Amino acid sequence: MQRELIKFKRTPYIISSYCVAGKKEYEGPLGKLFDECSLDNKFNKDTWEKSEGEMQRRAVHGAMKKAKLSDTDVDILFSGDLLNQCVGSNYGLIDYDIPYVGLYGACSTCVEGLALASCMYAGGIFTVCATVTSSHFCASERQFRFPLEYGGQRAPTAQWTVTGSGAYILGDSGNVKITEAMFGKTVDMGITDINNMGAAMAPSCYDTLKRYFKESSQSPSDFDLIATGDLGYEGSEILKDLLLRDGIDIRNNHNDCGLMVFDRKRQDVHAGGSGCGCSAIVLSCEILKKLEAGIYNNVLVIGTGALMSPMTLFQGSSIPAVSHLIRLER
Amino acid sequence: MQRELIKFKRTPYIISSYCVAGKKEYEGPLGKLFDECSLDNKFNKDTWEKSEGEMQRRAVHGAMKKAKLSDTDVDILFSGDLLNQCVGSNYGLIDYDIPYVGLYGACSTCVEGLALASCMYAGGIFTVCATVTSSHFCASERQFRFPLEYGGQRAPTAQWTVTGSGAYILGDSGNVKITEAMFGKTVDMGITDINNMGAAMAPSCYDTLKRYFKESSQSPSDFDLIATGDLGYEGSEILKDLLLRDGIDIRNNHNDCGLMVFDRKRQDVHAGGSGCGCSAIVLSCEILKKLEAGIYNNVLVIGTGALMSPMTLFQGSSIPAVSHLIRLER
Repeated sequence: MQRELIKFKRTPYIISSYCVAGKKEYEGPLGKLFDECSLDNKFNKDTWEKSEGEMQRRAVHGAMKKAKLSDTDVDILFSGDLLNQCVGSNYGLIDYDIPYVGLYGACSTCVEGLALASCMYAGGIFTVCATVTSSHFCASERQFRFPLEYGGQRAPTAQWTVTGSGAYILGDSGNVKITEAMFGKTVDMGITDINNMGAAMAPSCYDTLKRYFKESSQSPSDFDLIATGDLGYEGSEILKDLLLRDGIDIRNNHNDCGLMVFDRKRQDVHAGGSGCGCSAIVLSCEILKKLEAGIYNNVLVIGTGALMSPMTLFQGSSIPAVSHLIRLER
Repeated sequence: MQRELIKFKRTPYIISSYCVAGKKEYEGPLGKLFDECSLDNKFNKDTWEKSEGEMQRRAVHGAMKKAKLSDTDVDILFSGDLLNQCVGSNYGLIDYDIPYVGLYGACSTCVEGLALASCMYAGGIFTVCATVTSSHFCASERQFRFPLEYGGQRAPTAQWTVTGSGAYILGDSGNVKITEAMFGKTVDMGITDINNMGAAMAPSCYDTLKRYFKESSQSPSDFDLIATGDLGYEGSEILKDLLLRDGIDIRNNHNDCGLMVFDRKRQDVHAGGSGCGCSAIVLSCEILKKLEAGIYNNVLVIGTGALMSPMTLFQGSSIPAVSHLIRLER
């Protein structure tokens, strides 16, 4: 019988985390909490792809520095981003003398990496594991939609890709531990709208959460926070509706990293933030901080990824999605 | 201190494998050994991307059927391919009711998946793990170089992307076990030639093998075969030269999956085969079969991946590469 919910016996702790972000994120409600910002979004590089790589490099460097670790102390580095061939990771991390595992889970990659790193630690394979993910608004828009110069209008359901990167070091010390993980299954409900990733991702998040509550025998009220990665306004509403139909009410405990990172009323981001960097920076600067301070004790984080490809959309396919889950406890 | 070489105590066995391939592969030296072939490379689908996904679907289905397992018997599925957003995996595997972990390691992904699955099994996280990778010549050429209709000339050092997919089920029974794994580090020696992936990958393969022989205290003559993924003729020569400078002579024990899958004299493939599907099908139909038959007892397989992106090459960057290693014993 399939064991979908993983409960860790040898529990990994989050030793440190570090997040870097761009200008719009700095101007948002969490702006003052980021470890580092670049107000021209360039991070001293001359292409958006290199800027994204530089964010990953700085995030890993910062997390290692906080943990007082050098390259040879870290056993493995899980990494990914949204760009074709994951060039943010490939180029950004080239200088690190650490074994490298490349991931692709779209915006779910932050939690995918944390879940894999937790398994590696829990299984006694490694003692110190690092993970990092990133996204960059300018690189993503060019690749998935239109180059910025085109000035395309944005639909009300469109989300704003976060410019940011978050890195995490897992090991045997810290105040916050990852106690459970559940890997997502791909779900495709037929969404073909390139400007409505929230609707494409919500059913996969629903699938993972439904399985989680069934297998864990926990209920939403057991958690101080159930944080989804980047469903945005549209996707969050769909998720809550879908779960409510099954009698699972997360309305009092749910928030979405895409809704936390920007102020939708004040900032022109439509349905909210998205991207591999969205959950990565919000988890680091906001959720983890509140866990460390004892404001939260028990949190679920679900990374939500729309496995969207312009090529297959042009061919008439719809958008599958995958959502991975971790449970964080103080 | 970093532990780079992983020696498994709870050793995973390869329960089954299954490989599907295209026409050119069928006409090659291993043609009769594949489980399934499509002589029009389409696998009854109407786009190359869907054909690639269908190969993955069939490979996983075949491996599960051989092992007499259904979806609910498999704990996790590691998957990846060369296409943007890994659409071969995302779409091909959508019908499986199995938790899904997306990987991107270019042509190293087959071994990356096997190494991760082995760690998951060895660490007691899961009991049955599946991995699958694929590549498709027509989809890859269009994405990385030119559409086939353009009729671009191929350089002598260019390799021919294998149309094929190989799936593996790992668990507690079988004749062949994975006893060790080592994850690669990204290495970039400045190669910018889009038609010489072998030269880009050889230094990373050298780095992994050098670390392996140092940490394991094994020598090349201890192995019946040291199989590299898809260095091709050019890359294989560079690898052997680089190792020989350090006094490591693999010339009598080395072969390359890219050289095994095609007959370079008879088939117009220039430096040999390549792609996520290359090592995946050669390992399944040739290397594993010989291990099962007792012709081999001790084999190293090194998946070699050129993390090449047309976008960053246009921006003047060179091509980093990563090479992951597993050791197979009878």
